[in-house]
Amino acid sequence: MECFLLGTGGMMPMPQRLLTSLAVRSKGRLYLFDAGEGTQLGFKKLHLGLRGFDVAAVTHLHADHCLGLPGLLMLRAQMDDPAPFTLLGPPGLERFVALIGETLEFYMSFAIHYREWSPGASPLAYEDEHVRILWRPLKHTRFCLGYRLEERERPGKFRPEAAEALGVPKGPLWRELQRGNAVPLPSGGEVRPDQVLGPPRRGRCLSFVVDTRPVKEAVELCRNADLAFLEGMFLPEHAHHARAKGHMTVAEAASVARRAQALRAVLVHVSPRYDEGGLQELERAARKEWDRVEVGREGGVYQVPAPESSRIR
Amino acid sequence: MECFLLGTGGMMPMPQRLLTSLAVRSKGRLYLFDAGEGTQLGFKKLHLGLRGFDVAAVTHLHADHCLGLPGLLMLRAQMDDPAPFTLLGPPGLERFVALIGETLEFYMSFAIHYREWSPGASPLAYEDEHVRILWRPLKHTRFCLGYRLEERERPGKFRPEAAEALGVPKGPLWRELQRGNAVPLPSGGEVRPDQVLGPPRRGRCLSFVVDTRPVKEAVELCRNADLAFLEGMFLPEHAHHARAKGHMTVAEAASVARRAQALRAVLVHVSPRYDEGGLQELERAARKEWDRVEVGREGGVYQVPAPESSRIR
Repeated sequence: MECFLLGTGGMMPMPQRLLTSLAVRSKGRLYLFDAGEGTQLGFKKLHLGLRGFDVAAVTHLHADHCLGLPGLLMLRAQMDDPAPFTLLGPPGLERFVALIGETLEFYMSFAIHYREWSPGASPLAYEDEHVRILWRPLKHTRFCLGYRLEERERPGKFRPEAAEALGVPKGPLWRELQRGNAVPLPSGGEVRPDQVLGPPRRGRCLSFVVDTRPVKEAVELCRNADLAFLEGMFLPEHAHHARAKGHMTVAEAASVARRAQALRAVLVHVSPRYDEGGLQELERAARKEWDRVEVGREGGVYQVPAPESSRIR
Repeated sequence: MECFLLGTGGMMPMPQRLLTSLAVRSKGRLYLFDAGEGTQLGFKKLHLGLRGFDVAAVTHLHADHCLGLPGLLMLRAQMDDPAPFTLLGPPGLERFVALIGETLEFYMSFAIHYREWSPGASPLAYEDEHVRILWRPLKHTRFCLGYRLEERERPGKFRPEAAEALGVPKGPLWRELQRGNAVPLPSGGEVRPDQVLGPPRRGRCLSFVVDTRPVKEAVELCRNADLAFLEGMFLPEHAHHARAKGHMTVAEAASVARRAQALRAVLVHVSPRYDEGGLQELERAARKEWDRVEVGREGGVYQVPAPESSRIR
């Protein structure tokens, strides 16, 4: 599982700091979180292909989080035979995309399945054979969702000594057991996967929480995450801006990550008021609160290690 | 008069080639032609301030020409006390901006005056004390306008020998005459400006013609222009794409410039299929048709010399 941080800025795209957008690659699929103006530039800078990019999740309908969607959809419409696309987001997302599509008469060569949050909606926004995406409303100046992506549980570790003891010959039958299927023994009878596999291993898990006050829902989305992307919009000394605009200071973000016991937290959605020196200041201020926090690297690629080897890199 | 070529690409923004957009500075004012996704990045890269940026003209409602407008308007809304803004463009432009503004709830701190072309509209789209902007419908897959910006006529050259012969003392009275005002003589009587000025000098003139077949209206907009920005979307060998998509090849664009006797032509809106080597090929192909044509430089600044010293630089 790899995370591509296409941009780390908030409010407006800057030549050296595109708007915050995260693409997560897992088993050949690409899951995108937010797309402000210029996110397609991030795709191109990181040489991310569009093949396998079939799902995007939008936190809220502010321009810096969704105005890049139409461009991405148009880009995708130029692929040969693109798959249907799933768009997750707040109420109004479908209308937003449809109105722009209609006004600009843009060509869509694939179906878009919309799933908009509504009161009473299931916490499960999306699932496929590899991952589940959960959502929770947060607290911003406009209705805003936070997301959590979880890989499905993986089968436990294969124990060759157990297979040998049960008389399963090395080869194709071992592979079947590793995949979680029962196999017949040459001597008659059957061996079940649970006889030769260790306990199931949990999948990796990450969260994307931006444009919110540090509410408990933010903590829940980040609970034990292997990697938590959290907005770090302001220095603690600009806390009044954070409160007034429905954002978090880096100290508040770090505190969310600490309370959630996230293994690693990356701060994104930085205010354009901070230059390179400002980023270091943001990181220092965040680490006073918790030392597993760092400021996101523009265009950075983050590997998420398998949970049994989880560690801070 | 200075022209800032904020981008030179067509269809989609690329990291090294933003979408075609032109900002023209004349007497402290900035006039913008087209704004696709990412045009605000061009403003920032070229360190163009927003002060004096009160007019934008849109050629047509395709995403690569107008999807950057909302971002620019939001940026402008953060200025202290911004002036009213004028938006020129095709029918539907106001609805497009209003729908996005409403859906994304973006804050506008200034009035926007829309002027949409309509059948029977005056060829004069806009005028202020410095310039006039003219428009003409072109021929594209969607209704598309071309533009021509003309500086107002300037008073003729001051002839000091004529002023002296008429007995006007050197000093403030000379300045008044240079400004085009009559002055009283110390000895009685009056001297009129036409007695001491040469013939009025025409203002500079430039044109912006993209996304069109090479129709006569394109030629008319470029007639005797000091600087003509013309789309050069395709190589002549890709003429079938140009015809099918309502564009010009570079040879067709060069032919428009030649027929219009434009003093200098700059090709913009280049297809993303051409890389740096492709740009040189485009220029060579264009120059076979006419040698006053060049391919636009990304982020390039083009000075437009005063007409009496017009020359190809």
